[in-house]
Amino acid sequence: MKDIQKNKPVREIDINMVGVKNLKAPLVVIDKKNKCQETVGSINIFVNLPRHYRGTHISRFIEVLNRYTKKTLTVEVLDKLTLEILRILEAEKSRIEIEFPYFILKSSPISKKKSLLDYQCKIIRIANRNIKEIEHIIQVEVPITTVCPCSKAISKYGAHNQRGYVTVSMKLNKFFWIEEVIDIIEEEASCDIYPLLKREDEKYVTEKAYENPKFAEDIVRDVSYRLEQDKRIDWFKVECENQESVHNHNVYAKIENRLPD
Amino acid sequence: MKDIQKNKPVREIDINMVGVKNLKAPLVVIDKKNKCQETVGSINIFVNLPRHYRGTHISRFIEVLNRYTKKTLTVEVLDKLTLEILRILEAEKSRIEIEFPYFILKSSPISKKKSLLDYQCKIIRIANRNIKEIEHIIQVEVPITTVCPCSKAISKYGAHNQRGYVTVSMKLNKFFWIEEVIDIIEEEASCDIYPLLKREDEKYVTEKAYENPKFAEDIVRDVSYRLEQDKRIDWFKVECENQESVHNHNVYAKIENRLPD
Amino acid sequence: MKDIQKNKPVREIDINMVGVKNLKAPLVVIDKKNKCQETVGSINIFVNLPRHYRGTHISRFIEVLNRYTKKTLTVEVLDKLTLEILRILEAEKSRIEIEFPYFILKSSPISKKKSLLDYQCKIIRIANRNIKEIEHIIQVEVPITTVCPCSKAISKYGAHNQRGYVTVSMKLNKFFWIEEVIDIIEEEASCDIYPLLKREDEKYVTEKAYENPKFAEDIVRDVSYRLEQDKRIDWFKVECENQESVHNHNVYAKIENRLPD
Amino acid sequence: MKDIQKNKPVREIDINMVGVKNLKAPLVVIDKKNKCQETVGSINIFVNLPRHYRGTHISRFIEVLNRYTKKTLTVEVLDKLTLEILRILEAEKSRIEIEFPYFILKSSPISKKKSLLDYQCKIIRIANRNIKEIEHIIQVEVPITTVCPCSKAISKYGAHNQRGYVTVSMKLNKFFWIEEVIDIIEEEASCDIYPLLKREDEKYVTEKAYENPKFAEDIVRDVSYRLEQDKRIDWFKVECENQESVHNHNVYAKIENRLPD
Repeated sequence: MKDIQKNKPVREIDINMVGVKNLKAPLVVIDKKNKCQETVGSINIFVNLPRHYRGTHISRFIEVLNRYTKKTLTVEVLDKLTLEILRILEAEKSRIEIEFPYFILKSSPISKKKSLLDYQCKIIRIANRNIKEIEHIIQVEVPITTVCPCSKAISKYGAHNQRGYVTVSMKLNKFFWIEEVIDIIEEEASCDIYPLLKREDEKYVTEKAYENPKFAEDIVRDVSYRLEQDKRIDWFKVECENQESVHNHNVYAKIENRLPD
Repeated sequence: MKDIQKNKPVREIDINMVGVKNLKAPLVVIDKKNKCQETVGSINIFVNLPRHYRGTHISRFIEVLNRYTKKTLTVEVLDKLTLEILRILEAEKSRIEIEFPYFILKSSPISKKKSLLDYQCKIIRIANRNIKEIEHIIQVEVPITTVCPCSKAISKYGAHNQRGYVTVSMKLNKFFWIEEVIDIIEEEASCDIYPLLKREDEKYVTEKAYENPKFAEDIVRDVSYRLEQDKRIDWFKVECENQESVHNHNVYAKIENRLPD
Repeated sequence: MKDIQKNKPVREIDINMVGVKNLKAPLVVIDKKNKCQETVGSINIFVNLPRHYRGTHISRFIEVLNRYTKKTLTVEVLDKLTLEILRILEAEKSRIEIEFPYFILKSSPISKKKSLLDYQCKIIRIANRNIKEIEHIIQVEVPITTVCPCSKAISKYGAHNQRGYVTVSMKLNKFFWIEEVIDIIEEEASCDIYPLLKREDEKYVTEKAYENPKFAEDIVRDVSYRLEQDKRIDWFKVECENQESVHNHNVYAKIENRLPD
Repeated sequence: MKDIQKNKPVREIDINMVGVKNLKAPLVVIDKKNKCQETVGSINIFVNLPRHYRGTHISRFIEVLNRYTKKTLTVEVLDKLTLEILRILEAEKSRIEIEFPYFILKSSPISKKKSLLDYQCKIIRIANRNIKEIEHIIQVEVPITTVCPCSKAISKYGAHNQRGYVTVSMKLNKFFWIEEVIDIIEEEASCDIYPLLKREDEKYVTEKAYENPKFAEDIVRDVSYRLEQDKRIDWFKVECENQESVHNHNVYAKIENRLPD
């Protein structure tokens, strides 16, 4: 049977990325407390394609991936997967993006009732045949409460507040737990969020958030300040998007200390 | 050329609805204050298909619709469109759903600064060959502020609040302005929402909302109470979904005084 | 601390449904071949609220749910959960909706290469204090290939085809495997879909689909015909939505043999 | 009343971007054939924030924007808006992103029936106090038909095809009509797409697409080749994402000849 993909293309132009998007798969990711947790991911895998090949071989992406979906996605396993894609697809560059909800058992602040909170996470690996090391990027989105300092300062009582989402993306030179990023963000919020709050907990989070009003600007600065101290991070981006309770639009702030490619 | 659609199907079963979904079009809708406003809609059009025809003629839906997208969609025009679909597709039942953002110029409460707020609306028309009258259904989604009464009552200061969305769907026997539904919902919120708030406005909405705490349950009841008084409504459904600022899930309440088909 | 929720509301109106939406949780669901599989769900839980209570107790929904997220969600466990919500929330009606991706290991048709295909599923349970039995509803969405019979019949060669999604919802009086619904839908498609296709498989699915052209209308009829034969089903709804490759809108068909509430 | 935003922040760190996201507004955009067209946009506006200010003044973004939403958004008007944001917010950098559906009246290939096709577009403007010129970026997404060359070559008859979306983003040094980008992409597709196709048109597009099979890789190359010839473009990115009809995942290819910031 013909291998059309190996033909010469009409226009011999290098392709930066070609591959598959939104492939769903069950995954096992590492978990600081419980060693691993089972979740479900949406996966993108890409390689570059040199100018003299017409097409890439999509089925090979799936074949390689299939060998990994049952394994626990440790740092080593992810690196191996990224390099195997590079090798099997005969590419110079490979890029893997794995997005998944990650769950942490939180205890409510006063009653200590436990419940699982979900955080949307993304792992990115980029391998380059000419460069020895593989790029490690992680992205973690954390839901938080934000109380508006302006609203509090000018009002007799109350202050508008809302759910905000803080997203940290960072390129790492050493391992960093998802749990560590979450801790930093939750500590810098007006208050962190819980699935389960009994009345005494609700009193606590309401008062704590009110005592600790923060703009989106404050939050991206305070998180950035924490990340700047950490030698394991080569670059980072901190974003905060607030679902303003007094508007039908969102407020957004971003700090990045170096640009990703 | 063959008309495959007119063939007999293998399985002679009546089809309740067949047609097109997510057809985008520029629209002109009626506006209480400015007579009309231009917007963009996402349109679904369906008819039933009797058991002895294999397929419907999709192109005719688009042909009929094309004759209407430049017209102002008054009550009469919408009725005509619904009946024309019925006639041209030789159907017993036709159903049209038009979803669009609708804009209203609001003045902020104190500084009286004007800005346009968007509301997601839906118009549904159902015609039935055997029944004289056409069913008129409208749906309006209104963003509001909700302050939690429990959080306020138990806390020393502050109260968690958030953006909520109240959606009213109703079958009408007489005309009802979108503006009328919006007014009812905004009056029954902890506070209504504005795109533009100067400091004095922000003080006002913060304090008003705090003085007026409401559960999702309160809001659907208070809106229902208002709608129950109105003779133009044959049935209604009121939903409130709050983007809880202290949780990563939403709180939802619904009252319906009769079920839609 | 005050229990504001137990107060009398201003407007004493019954609330049909109140509860939580979009609560994420890791789940274990039953699997025909492997006994169970781990996935991640988005959960809605609701109860009715009688007119004399101002609010429901949201935290109790989460507390009950927490007792179930580690258990395998068998028929019995789901029924128990639904009844426990009814009892703990002191309600007359409870409704649970659990949506999750479900994975099945498929072998490609010729090379027999294995890969996991994802199907979006939903389980609904409705308990009613006054009625003995609990309502069991399942919904399964299956991606398929559809080839247009009209395009094939009128063209010298080729035929437009596309990915379509068939969704079957049904109320059951006896247990029905998700795998059984999927089999029926895949058998009635122009061709079923695979994550991994080697060249010989791609040839097979292309030719099979071309030999088996079907309108959305054909598919909902052929699936309905199969479901009508099954005594375990009290009512069903079959929908097909095609991402037309020659249009920027979708084509949709629906058969329902009785209306859900 | 206090101006909390003017305070010094705890952490004096420069903020790259702060502003509003997903602000909806009716818009008038320029149209090659009809001078202008009315549509609805989703708008993001950002500025940088120097380290010594605690917060930006969100209401000013809306006030400036309000002065422009009724004007036709010509090149000059957009530049003025971008500079006015820079000036009023006292910033060094401003960035405006306006996303909207754009409609073009297409004639079907044989019967010449007219219908409106929607294209998702985005205009980006970046002003920098230190650099004289304003950056002009546009992004246009075009739905097309793609026929798989491999499937055609190896099969006795038929070939799998699907709806694909080609997105071109480019930085311009001279004006470029949205219509020009659309023409290039549609000419390089297996076939372009129409809302309204009569039978003779459907025969034409089926056969034309079958005679012209293209991988996502072919399309991004062929479009890139065309854009490379155009001196008005400083950099571009071409992406193609195919909703594969034989898979439940998408295939994606990208060429960029320089990276955007």
